[in-house]
Amino acid sequence: MQINLKETAEFLKTHDNFYILTHMNPDGDTIGAGFALCYALRGAGKNANVLCSDEFPERYGFLYRDYEPQKFSPDTVVAVDIADEKLLGTPLAGYKGYVDLCIDHHISNTGYAKKQLVYPEASAACEVLYRVLSEMDIVPDILTAECLYTGIATDTGCFKYANTTVLAHIIAAKLMDCGIDAERINRDMFDRKSKKRLAAEQHILSNMEYYLDDKCTITAVTLEDMEKEDFTGDELEGTAGMTVQPEGIQVGILIKEKEHGKFKISMRSASDIDVSAICAKFGGGGHTKAAGCTIEGKLDDIKLQLLSATAPTMGIDLWLA
Amino acid sequence: MQINLKETAEFLKTHDNFYILTHMNPDGDTIGAGFALCYALRGAGKNANVLCSDEFPERYGFLYRDYEPQKFSPDTVVAVDIADEKLLGTPLAGYKGYVDLCIDHHISNTGYAKKQLVYPEASAACEVLYRVLSEMDIVPDILTAECLYTGIATDTGCFKYANTTVLAHIIAAKLMDCGIDAERINRDMFDRKSKKRLAAEQHILSNMEYYLDDKCTITAVTLEDMEKEDFTGDELEGTAGMTVQPEGIQVGILIKEKEHGKFKISMRSASDIDVSAICAKFGGGGHTKAAGCTIEGKLDDIKLQLLSATAPTMGIDLWLA
Repeated sequence: MQINLKETAEFLKTHDNFYILTHMNPDGDTIGAGFALCYALRGAGKNANVLCSDEFPERYGFLYRDYEPQKFSPDTVVAVDIADEKLLGTPLAGYKGYVDLCIDHHISNTGYAKKQLVYPEASAACEVLYRVLSEMDIVPDILTAECLYTGIATDTGCFKYANTTVLAHIIAAKLMDCGIDAERINRDMFDRKSKKRLAAEQHILSNMEYYLDDKCTITAVTLEDMEKEDFTGDELEGTAGMTVQPEGIQVGILIKEKEHGKFKISMRSASDIDVSAICAKFGGGGHTKAAGCTIEGKLDDIKLQLLSATAPTMGIDLWLA
Repeated sequence: MQINLKETAEFLKTHDNFYILTHMNPDGDTIGAGFALCYALRGAGKNANVLCSDEFPERYGFLYRDYEPQKFSPDTVVAVDIADEKLLGTPLAGYKGYVDLCIDHHISNTGYAKKQLVYPEASAACEVLYRVLSEMDIVPDILTAECLYTGIATDTGCFKYANTTVLAHIIAAKLMDCGIDAERINRDMFDRKSKKRLAAEQHILSNMEYYLDDKCTITAVTLEDMEKEDFTGDELEGTAGMTVQPEGIQVGILIKEKEHGKFKISMRSASDIDVSAICAKFGGGGHTKAAGCTIEGKLDDIKLQLLSATAPTMGIDLWLA
């Protein structure tokens, strides 16, 4: 059942022992929202712990540097930034069907929680949570403010992407007023990279091929490349956007070999071309500007198939080119 | 003479024929402020043209797509984002001593204008100008709002850098409310790169060397490299930040060969180390986190000199390492 801000605030005020669930493969928004809610509830004299099926990535360590789990008997389960119970992951699967409240911003939220506050227009779960805390008249301390800022900044690509709302900027201003060090957070989130990640980016830049009147790039990463250049599939997460960086490129294609002869395709559009329609031809899907599919076969054949499917969207006849 | 917002608004209201000067090597802030002021003044029934010593880079073309210079006899000269008359450049050098009003945010502003509104704490000249237009009760149309947003976004690295103010976020929210397409602007400003720029970035990633217990990187770019890999010194502008991207790196050094045997050094700090102090040893200077100097000699010797000067700041004795 969808409830409103006031009802959510009332729910949190009238309960006392919280387990806060974050999603598997945790990102800045679920971690930020989880700990922000935890700190706010503890600050209000309640018991609260944050749970996750996976280890939190080290880069978010500053958000829980002094955090210690408390010992208490939980009576209330809150999920933050979790669109689907599947995303609880195996270790937390026992909470399926037992989530009392979900605070989220995914339009795809399956409505699994008993009560939910889902604002699909919000940039981040942390944007929704900020509004809840305001409704509760809670002024975030610096650490809580850093958690909320981190969630909004990471989900919007530092206020760069289309999901950046007017409210995201207004909340950022209010959080900066709380005394956070936004510069350090942004540097750590956006300008610091592992050597393996840099190796992956280097591979993409070095191996980008131009096709279709220089309107389409294809970059392939084979298992052999990763072995030789010392990075893994993990480091390729979020790199598909690099394929549409070159000026004039309308569609970018990243081909990652998952296992021998089986390739995961990520397509990006920097134009009106709907890449989800192209991926649908290969049994995949996604959004108009970011989509994917999986294809088995030989790399060169796959490139040709993808170019054949992409060319007509650019008004190019591949066989006359 | 420093004047306040109200006096600046009054000055603009009581004059009618404006030449607006932008600085040489124009960036998003001077172009954004120049055209925003021009459109606002024209909208108020006045004559206004924007002047620059250099061509505006193509990427900012959307800010002046329908702009045409007007024919009129100017009686008022306004400079935007220009800290020093030297930055007018040679073609506009005739305006030295004739600038009636300067709207700027550089703490280094030399005070050359008859009247000036300089807010050194502002993120961008466009932030200052937004406040002037508000004081004049001017609500920006979409194009004017795009100009102002572009200036603030480019000068703050999309709200990422330390100069990002609370007001920058609040103004961004108000400009988004004017109906601008912030996503497209940000994509063009931050996620679209020329092939030559990508070649330069690829060179940096491929040639980064790690020193001093992996706390310092050095990346060298020779004239031969640029020739062979098809990019120029222009494409290296703004790439020094890449040298401190790797996790754990405290100081990053970019060495660019300007002419045979003469090297421009850019140093960046991602720690408390003051790189301007290191550069000062070589006759250079700058800020604590971003500084530079010029050294002549052989590349390998220069690397050793720079490492020798940097090692003590990290408590490392180079000769025992």
